[in-house]
Amino acid sequence: MTSPAPVVLAFLDPAFPDGRVADATQPQLLVTDLGVTRGDGVFETMLAVGGTVRKMQAHLDRLGGSAAALDLAIPDQEAWRRVIAAAVARHRSENPPADPAADELVVKLVVTRGVEGEAPTAWVQASPAGAAGRRQRETGIDVILLDRGYDSDVAERAPWLLLGAKTLSYAVNMAALRHAHKQGADDVIFLSSDGRVLEGPTSTVLLAHVEKSDDGTTVKRLITPQLDSGILAGTSQGALFAAAKAAGWELGYGPLEPRDLMDADAVWLISSVRLLAPVNRIDGKEIGTPSVQKELTAELSGLFAAIH
Amino acid sequence: MTSPAPVVLAFLDPAFPDGRVADATQPQLLVTDLGVTRGDGVFETMLAVGGTVRKMQAHLDRLGGSAAALDLAIPDQEAWRRVIAAAVARHRSENPPADPAADELVVKLVVTRGVEGEAPTAWVQASPAGAAGRRQRETGIDVILLDRGYDSDVAERAPWLLLGAKTLSYAVNMAALRHAHKQGADDVIFLSSDGRVLEGPTSTVLLAHVEKSDDGTTVKRLITPQLDSGILAGTSQGALFAAAKAAGWELGYGPLEPRDLMDADAVWLISSVRLLAPVNRIDGKEIGTPSVQKELTAELSGLFAAIH
Repeated sequence: MTSPAPVVLAFLDPAFPDGRVADATQPQLLVTDLGVTRGDGVFETMLAVGGTVRKMQAHLDRLGGSAAALDLAIPDQEAWRRVIAAAVARHRSENPPADPAADELVVKLVVTRGVEGEAPTAWVQASPAGAAGRRQRETGIDVILLDRGYDSDVAERAPWLLLGAKTLSYAVNMAALRHAHKQGADDVIFLSSDGRVLEGPTSTVLLAHVEKSDDGTTVKRLITPQLDSGILAGTSQGALFAAAKAAGWELGYGPLEPRDLMDADAVWLISSVRLLAPVNRIDGKEIGTPSVQKELTAELSGLFAAIH
Repeated sequence: MTSPAPVVLAFLDPAFPDGRVADATQPQLLVTDLGVTRGDGVFETMLAVGGTVRKMQAHLDRLGGSAAALDLAIPDQEAWRRVIAAAVARHRSENPPADPAADELVVKLVVTRGVEGEAPTAWVQASPAGAAGRRQRETGIDVILLDRGYDSDVAERAPWLLLGAKTLSYAVNMAALRHAHKQGADDVIFLSSDGRVLEGPTSTVLLAHVEKSDDGTTVKRLITPQLDSGILAGTSQGALFAAAKAAGWELGYGPLEPRDLMDADAVWLISSVRLLAPVNRIDGKEIGTPSVQKELTAELSGLFAAIH
């Protein structure tokens, strides 16, 4: 038996600028916290590599946007930065990374609405990244397409649906993943009720086309669904798009339909911890050309690894 | 300053058949519980009047249905019944009800998926019913209509959306209520994206028509949206329908559109704790005839109060 992965937990608390450190193996939340009774709160999941959190600013900005969508007052970014830095440093000092190639920490930021009538509860949690995500980066994943039930215009007309916010109410995302696992698949790509490609339950969809242009040069195009379809703005997609553009890729934004996925030279799900996971099959059908997929994955993974 | 309302908390635990009693004012949950990190769990909210829980069987059945939709293994009904009875008895013995007319306890049942790879967390929580709900039964409420984003067929074709399950992922319901409060309204009636009347964020919609038939007798008809539109099966609606039928009412089931609400002689939102709340205005427009509404509310409230 292995002992549970070590977790460093620190609550944001004005009395403790570097965080009020608490024991994650002991109860720390009230059963009346609206985070648990109503899934009423927001979160971010970040990756720290070699002790440095990737895309910190983008995550803090998105956390702020999610909180605003929920009318939730949260600590300012400077307060988060201090507690995050202290939690990561503490984890590395208490658990020196054995394998520099796997020196990855998952850093979660969570804010719940707290107990009715009281202040929000906010914490930072640092724990080792699991091996499953690293494995899927290498082997690739099989996905199924599932209807998300919303049409692609709803986000704009119904802000109370919180479609652009990363809330704690993830039961549907988890149910969709269980549905995929029962069918022998690893993950899900959601479609809108009007047939547009949206996102994964915990990731953003990317696809690539490689074409020879008339003058014989190779044009590589990286494409993602358009944001106004009610999906979460992917911090990883944003960072990779910037890096790919600098490396000469053309960029494109949806609307995308399932056949765009089927016709692509490669498809990926990208997220902050698993990073770039190549999609091998969608609904059982092989996607792209293995040799091209492998080459593009290597190039984009290299670009993505280099971002901060 | 008043002290916080007394809460009795008891976890379901095979080692404690009457529940493992815990202090609700102290932290009892791990921050890694999937109930809080993913809103991954189910719940029920019941009302105990004079120490007796109303509609216990219907609530336990619905809890079981919700858990099945989430592939969540939960304790059996006998275990719940013992812990519920003990928690209600303990609350009444520790806090003898001062006012017999307000001898109401809210009894919450909650099951979360627990920490990844471990057993679900399940508890019963008993606390005094707030005055706000009792007030709204008397004064009635103003509601607004909001788009729920789903069409009325989605529940059947996409079970992973968990539309018939009462999950802890209630962030959208809470956001819709905040949206209503900002507009000066008390509550919400959701519509499907194809314009059908669905439900309230925490209640079921009812409407009534009163007609004189050809032979001069009065026909009273009680109507609710049809269940296959992806709404939660209301335990209160079910119980009231049975009682109204026995009292000579005709019953009807949707599809309903907003104009059916506007044309009704009375509209209510019904739920287990607030009970039958008459709707005075929808999107600012007065509903029904005050005298008829008052009479029908009195009759149905009497029928509903008598159920167990």
